[in-house]
Amino acid sequence: MAGSNINQPLLDQLPKTLQNVDSRRRRLRRLKSAPMPEFIPGEMNDIKDNQSLPRYESILNKLHPSFRKVILYLVIYLGIGTTCFYFVQNQIQGKKVNGVLDSVYFCVVTMTTVGYGDLVPNSSTTKLLASFFVFSGMALVGMVLSKGADYLVEKQETLLIKALHMRDKVGPSVILEEVETNKVRYKCFVITATLVVLIVVGTVFLAEVEKLSTIDAFYCVCSTITTLGYGDKSFSTKVGRIFAIFWILTSTICLAQFFLYVAEFNTERKQKELVQWVLSRKMTNVDLEVADLDNDRAVGAAEFVVYKLKEMGKISQDDILLLLDEFECLDVDQSGTLSTTDLSLAQSS
Amino acid sequence: MAGSNINQPLLDQLPKTLQNVDSRRRRLRRLKSAPMPEFIPGEMNDIKDNQSLPRYESILNKLHPSFRKVILYLVIYLGIGTTCFYFVQNQIQGKKVNGVLDSVYFCVVTMTTVGYGDLVPNSSTTKLLASFFVFSGMALVGMVLSKGADYLVEKQETLLIKALHMRDKVGPSVILEEVETNKVRYKCFVITATLVVLIVVGTVFLAEVEKLSTIDAFYCVCSTITTLGYGDKSFSTKVGRIFAIFWILTSTICLAQFFLYVAEFNTERKQKELVQWVLSRKMTNVDLEVADLDNDRAVGAAEFVVYKLKEMGKISQDDILLLLDEFECLDVDQSGTLSTTDLSLAQSS
Repeated sequence: MAGSNINQPLLDQLPKTLQNVDSRRRRLRRLKSAPMPEFIPGEMNDIKDNQSLPRYESILNKLHPSFRKVILYLVIYLGIGTTCFYFVQNQIQGKKVNGVLDSVYFCVVTMTTVGYGDLVPNSSTTKLLASFFVFSGMALVGMVLSKGADYLVEKQETLLIKALHMRDKVGPSVILEEVETNKVRYKCFVITATLVVLIVVGTVFLAEVEKLSTIDAFYCVCSTITTLGYGDKSFSTKVGRIFAIFWILTSTICLAQFFLYVAEFNTERKQKELVQWVLSRKMTNVDLEVADLDNDRAVGAAEFVVYKLKEMGKISQDDILLLLDEFECLDVDQSGTLSTTDLSLAQSS
Repeated sequence: MAGSNINQPLLDQLPKTLQNVDSRRRRLRRLKSAPMPEFIPGEMNDIKDNQSLPRYESILNKLHPSFRKVILYLVIYLGIGTTCFYFVQNQIQGKKVNGVLDSVYFCVVTMTTVGYGDLVPNSSTTKLLASFFVFSGMALVGMVLSKGADYLVEKQETLLIKALHMRDKVGPSVILEEVETNKVRYKCFVITATLVVLIVVGTVFLAEVEKLSTIDAFYCVCSTITTLGYGDKSFSTKVGRIFAIFWILTSTICLAQFFLYVAEFNTERKQKELVQWVLSRKMTNVDLEVADLDNDRAVGAAEFVVYKLKEMGKISQDDILLLLDEFECLDVDQSGTLSTTDLSLAQSS
């Protein structure tokens, strides 16, 4: 039953004429079982291991392992960074409010490459330390973007779609279908909404707490989330810097993720156009001849699939050649097909 | 002949045992003709059109169209940005050296999000203008990263490999093969070398022209290429700012591209491991049964290819289902294979 639910979204996507075909007797096998039973990446094993751990750790364990890893690295980075800058705080000049707080704030402003310049290193040690932390910070932010942020947005996306369908009283399979079909579109929507909230919250906070004019507050928000950080306006109060630590980290990552999703959306749109073009293109006799891999003057279902996949650009000639060679190697009796006979012949040789 | 040259790299990649198989009589067709004769993207048409243009434009036309587009957008952006900031130069405060030069410099420092803060907007108009230019600048830098920079690095890569093989006196097909096999590795190498050169040149320039100490010069270089830009050290002389315009643009993009290539390298390594695992995994009777798409108790070459491609994660269940439905639709006489009969039946109905 679960298997047919997963197939559902795809069928709904198809034009009416193709759906009618679906009601015919199905002659073709559908490769329902997942073909990757043994290949379980390390991260999957982590999940299994953790299920036996005590209950008080359950919230952390509910999170995806790669997300947990990102959180862990982030905590380690900020821990080491803060400690380093705390011990050399007399070699950092600028507007200071509190030893530890300034160290965390300086660390976040450096790792996100905002670099206001309201606190600057003024000794060789701190200058080299800052240079080191900005490079490692960039790598870490890249890691957050590729693993952590995407995971969070996908979770929010599912919640959003559930909320949208609350009145319709639909089953989880419909929600799953909706998520799959418009994945990138909804991710763009979630990240845009989050970004707007972060911009508004930042502007209001800077206006109220840091006593900036509305224009200045908005300008400081833009200057921060883009990591421009001229530094003429920045967070100078104690409350402001506590807020800044969390707000800068989330808003800079959010904007970068927004740009990533827009790029992903464009790529997907182009890919979908190509798939549509390939599907709508009529097969000619020439196509039939080219698609006929085993030269038997008829194109089987699998040959058709391979030909069209190549036309869609999903697979390359190299992929096919590599596998055809592997096939010829396995086909010990040279019958043109693999059977149990070939397998036992291969084992005995 | 050209076709067999293209196949060469792949065959050399295969282990000895598989190459032996290659000497057997080839029973399988190899899909040699490219299956995308009609689908020529707009950019390809551009190339054709330009070949008939006069000679004095030839250098620009030798460049890839998407790269030309990036250059054009960059020139338009800097043109508009410089003009805008030039007209409001009295609303920008800080260390100034020359009207136009400062405007270009401010524009570059803003679009790359370096934001030293040595020049800052001090009116509402300029603040909003800077906010607008930093967002559009980020989008433009993203475009340069995805199209322009990659194209340049690939060109350099080919030159590098040609230089490495100068003594071996090898043909172009071997170079092409070398480029294809280790594409990402060489791209990483080229970008790292470029980055080192840019860092050294920047440090020497800042030390010699801007009279900074070596540590300060290196610190300013790190602060700039990462777009941190604290602003305590920046380019304050006329010559310095002219240099900065070109150096900041190339070095910030170069570092970002470096991070992108490292990510690409990791992804490719994982993908190659998976392909290797799929190829080395023995076929079992269960696999045979699952791979048998048309249920005829034998796995043909194409069925084997589809099964293994799915195992490698290159194609999804959805891709296969979509195409199988299309196939059933085309197979009018329900024979399980497509033939010229099916095509003529489809046309008459």
